[in-house]
Amino acid sequence: MHEPIAIANAYLDTWNQRVAAQRQALLAQHWSADARYVDPLMAGQGTAQIGALIAAVHERFPHFRFALLGKPDGHGDYVRLSWSLGPADGDAPIEGSDVVRLRDGKIDEVVGFIDRAPLP
Amino acid sequence: MHEPIAIANAYLDTWNQRVAAQRQALLAQHWSADARYVDPLMAGQGTAQIGALIAAVHERFPHFRFALLGKPDGHGDYVRLSWSLGPADGDAPIEGSDVVRLRDGKIDEVVGFIDRAPLP
Repeated sequence: MHEPIAIANAYLDTWNQRVAAQRQALLAQHWSADARYVDPLMAGQGTAQIGALIAAVHERFPHFRFALLGKPDGHGDYVRLSWSLGPADGDAPIEGSDVVRLRDGKIDEVVGFIDRAPLP
Repeated sequence: MHEPIAIANAYLDTWNQRVAAQRQALLAQHWSADARYVDPLMAGQGTAQIGALIAAVHERFPHFRFALLGKPDGHGDYVRLSWSLGPADGDAPIEGSDVVRLRDGKIDEVVGFIDRAPLP
């Protein structure tokens, strides 16, 4: 589970899970109970708040999915990964890179950055 | 000082300062006293240890300098930047990206990643 690819997949699986109960199950399995998340647009602490942030993204982009871009890497308790967000069958207009800090093998803190976004 | 470009410049100035006393002055000015640094190869805590890590890089690469790559960005207390490390007058063989967390406007934690390195 400490392999960067496994962490990246668990992380993006959580972001892609649209069923609230299943999303909370992934959060409970792969994230610390008091995990922190922050990116340029939102921030939350704890699996309930983070689940709500994810739900808000699904509401805003109902047909979009997160997909891994490139190869995650990491060292020690840190993993970084890049992702795209877009329609399942088309070009993804949004890309970002996140740095994940683990604690006891679980996602404990995420700092996210946007690499590409449509002009407003 | 919270501007990403100002943070990135203060950070790389510290890395490029070869005179120990001047480097410690930059560490005192721009970094928390108990700042933490970690990348795939090294880790340190506190300005004395971090100064010693920087000195070790200068010893290993006596003619190399760090240069900013691209445009630093950030949000809240976070800044990310990419850099190259190479001879002042040639192509840089090493590139990386670092995420900096600020506290009270000073560099408090750095997590670094390598983007490009020569094959061993």
